Amino acid sequence: MNLTGKMLIGGQSISGKREAQHAINPSTGQTLQPGYAGGDQAQVEQACALAWAAFDSYRETTPAQRAQLLETIAGEIEALGDALIERAMLETGLPQARLQGERARSCGQLRTFARTVRAGEWLDVRVDQAQPARQPLPRADLRQRQIPLGPVAVFGASNFPLAFSVAGGDTASALAAGCPVIVKAHSAHPGTSELVGQAIVRALEQCGLPAGVFALLFGSGREVGQALVNDARIKAVGFTGSRAGGLALCQSAQQRAEPIPVYAEMSSTNPVFLLPAALQARGGVLAQGFVGSLTQGAGQFCTNPGLLVALQGPALEQFVASAADLLQHSAAQTMLTPGIWAAYQDGVDSLSRHASTVAKGVLPTGPNQCQPQLLRVRAAEYLANPALQAEVFGAAALIVQCSDEVELLQLAEALEGQLTATLQLDDDDIALARRLLPVLERKAGRILVNGWPTGVEVCDAMVHGGPFPATSDVRSTSVGTAAIQRFLRPVCYQDLPDALLPTALKHANPQGLPRLLDGVREA
Amino acid sequence: MNLTGKMLIGGQSISGKREAQHAINPSTGQTLQPGYAGGDQAQVEQACALAWAAFDSYRETTPAQRAQLLETIAGEIEALGDALIERAMLETGLPQARLQGERARSCGQLRTFARTVRAGEWLDVRVDQAQPARQPLPRADLRQRQIPLGPVAVFGASNFPLAFSVAGGDTASALAAGCPVIVKAHSAHPGTSELVGQAIVRALEQCGLPAGVFALLFGSGREVGQALVNDARIKAVGFTGSRAGGLALCQSAQQRAEPIPVYAEMSSTNPVFLLPAALQARGGVLAQGFVGSLTQGAGQFCTNPGLLVALQGPALEQFVASAADLLQHSAAQTMLTPGIWAAYQDGVDSLSRHASTVAKGVLPTGPNQCQPQLLRVRAAEYLANPALQAEVFGAAALIVQCSDEVELLQLAEALEGQLTATLQLDDDDIALARRLLPVLERKAGRILVNGWPTGVEVCDAMVHGGPFPATSDVRSTSVGTAAIQRFLRPVCYQDLPDALLPTALKHANPQGLPRLLDGVREA
Repeated sequence: MNLTGKMLIGGQSISGKREAQHAINPSTGQTLQPGYAGGDQAQVEQACALAWAAFDSYRETTPAQRAQLLETIAGEIEALGDALIERAMLETGLPQARLQGERARSCGQLRTFARTVRAGEWLDVRVDQAQPARQPLPRADLRQRQIPLGPVAVFGASNFPLAFSVAGGDTASALAAGCPVIVKAHSAHPGTSELVGQAIVRALEQCGLPAGVFALLFGSGREVGQALVNDARIKAVGFTGSRAGGLALCQSAQQRAEPIPVYAEMSSTNPVFLLPAALQARGGVLAQGFVGSLTQGAGQFCTNPGLLVALQGPALEQFVASAADLLQHSAAQTMLTPGIWAAYQDGVDSLSRHASTVAKGVLPTGPNQCQPQLLRVRAAEYLANPALQAEVFGAAALIVQCSDEVELLQLAEALEGQLTATLQLDDDDIALARRLLPVLERKAGRILVNGWPTGVEVCDAMVHGGPFPATSDVRSTSVGTAAIQRFLRPVCYQDLPDALLPTALKHANPQGLPRLLDGVREA
Repeated sequence: MNLTGKMLIGGQSISGKREAQHAINPSTGQTLQPGYAGGDQAQVEQACALAWAAFDSYRETTPAQRAQLLETIAGEIEALGDALIERAMLETGLPQARLQGERARSCGQLRTFARTVRAGEWLDVRVDQAQPARQPLPRADLRQRQIPLGPVAVFGASNFPLAFSVAGGDTASALAAGCPVIVKAHSAHPGTSELVGQAIVRALEQCGLPAGVFALLFGSGREVGQALVNDARIKAVGFTGSRAGGLALCQSAQQRAEPIPVYAEMSSTNPVFLLPAALQARGGVLAQGFVGSLTQGAGQFCTNPGLLVALQGPALEQFVASAADLLQHSAAQTMLTPGIWAAYQDGVDSLSRHASTVAKGVLPTGPNQCQPQLLRVRAAEYLANPALQAEVFGAAALIVQCSDEVELLQLAEALEGQLTATLQLDDDDIALARRLLPVLERKAGRILVNGWPTGVEVCDAMVHGGPFPATSDVRSTSVGTAAIQRFLRPVCYQDLPDALLPTALKHANPQGLPRLLDGVREA
């Protein structure tokens, strides 16, 4: 391991000017070396100036060049070997296998975006050729492509130190779009961040691309984060984290002289509807699946199933008894940070003031361990009390018991925006599912049948997004290849001579891009 | 003509509860009958409730049904015949031929969106089929489509009483996307609005669609407009108008419990760069083209060329002399409203405090007539004074004289966001154009060569948008078929049985939609 405690600006390791922060090993409470000094205003400005200077050349790299960069980053991350996994384990308390899987996912994500960039659909090339003889007025030659927005500020998330952090989905999709990226590292895993940042710096060197295309900054969200979002050269923001943090960024972005888009993925309780026939037929299996999804990774997932909804009756009671039994034998797992652990305690305390506790997991034996909890409440109480809709980040879930289908539909209609909504159903539930589906489409970015929401596939069809407060921009996804669209905008070129047209729009289509030509999709 | 002075809610003509407003004939100052009483809070809520109730069924109409609605609206508008043109002439002072052309454009726009809806690319269907045997984990079946955001509030613009008003581009694209629409009519042309609103109501009836899909409200922006934007059932806003008006809507939308997207097209000076070789070779022709574009329709276009940029020297002086001569013979034309006329006077007064007046047009002879004006200033002064960047809505333009190419590039870099940027160039200007283009791409939504920015084609490749303050959302266009994307959001369906999948996503693809299937575009 080669940790310096320094930021990465312009391809150089540079010491921050503010107080140093240290990561903490959540399993032991031990402070980890080195310290990471935070950047000051001048260092933020330096990173922004370099990103801005690199933007015009980076955005005109060919799809092939950009794809090569993404693939090279993936290779450099893999080349970090065990050192990366070991440091991430120390900083997060997450187990080795999970982090190895997350590394594979992150590198796969970079390579998926490389394929997407090469395929070229993201450019959305549209050509309407001139019609000089048209009556009553001739038509000009009009061509459209997508261009990148500009330098993007990315805020690493705590719960995926690789997949939603320095080289995670936001960075991969922004680089794919042609945007330089400045990452504000999450304070929980600075060493992991530095290692991955170094890998990106090496990849840029190897690809002969400007060092300003990437920077890694340390420091507090209030200082470095706000300075980044307020800098006029930053043109978009990617964030995964708390609702309060996301809303603060949105507000700053709106107050700029030039407001910019913020893609904040914030909070979701991910309701799971246990429909009557399914609950009757396989309550035990559902309880197993549910407790597995709830407690996996100490429940520290955006898509953790924090809300179960079912009709009252013996089938529900049997499910609750099975789930309670399983939960009571679920081990306590170390959470990512002392702050997240404390917020979890506050969250379950708040829930338990308004709902009855059904079961608790095995008592914690070490610091920062999450004791799983299951609570229940009647739908009428849930509907009357907005506090019960709050996400509790960790392995806690609330069962809401409805007296009939009307109340169940009413509850669905009262939900806030969600990343996911799940239906557990059997054939006899189809009629009820048909009534629920239109409501859930309005509430969630992803709808699942007979699965569990944890596990987010990186593919073309994925949506990891949803109505507010799940995200700040319902039109977007932060996972999957459509995430590239967040960082693009259309530009139209009217009557440009072929010599001046961007390569993507030249008449001969030298890059062989998919095009909409005079309203017809070219084969 | 069958004007009732009433709003249209739920397919019914309903009298507003507030004070009546009357249109004014700007050519005479005469008050026009009938009065249009504004809606109150309860009436706004009624329209929102009906739109909300209609949403789930309207959004699941087939592409064919929605296309038929758009075409039927076009037919019903045409069936209004001369009555529509006559009323619009009275209310706007615009000439008959212009309004006939605008009607043709508006109906063509509705039919273009009908074709777009039928083609189905807007659904962006993505299918990633299950891979049950994949290692280390199986892949679920994942399918994505776009669904509409929900009811949309549309604010009619004053300067295009047909093309950017009740059945204009915002309404057409929102209806195409599957969103109910509530229009807040512009107070300048209530009668025109009512006639077009009636046409839409008749079209909904003929197509057997819920009356709640459309409503037309009268009243002030502060009361009816704000009530609309604050209503939780409104999920997006379309607006074309002033910067102050657009920003107020953005702020309200951000302050809601659930913030929503606002597509406000606000202000632009549409810089035209007269490059040296072109200016030398054909200054006289350029002066003609420029004055024609500037004075057309009293300059009341979002894309009016309000800023000319050129290098100092004899060629510029000759151009200025030619343009001044042409402008001095340009007739004064009636502006749309007394308010717009007063704002024009204020705007040119403000410019003339900081720039020298080169020429004025023919003296007005009637009320509310716009006297064209041409002013000039040195680049150094323009760069030092933000007041000179303000849009003056009407036939006024500012010539900025640069001492060299460096200053010209510096000026381009200092521009605010624009709808358009234009290059007048000859072969010898190509090198300079290449240096300007990357700057202009960052500044504008549409770049033209050797044309004039007025005239916005409705086609696939058009972008009528641009960086702030040209619009509030740089990722969008309000003209052209891509405008439909403003009102859509992605939803992912995981492992849904075919019976529950929306028709667009069913395995057999019964609607024959274009799809991305396992990463490959189906032929």
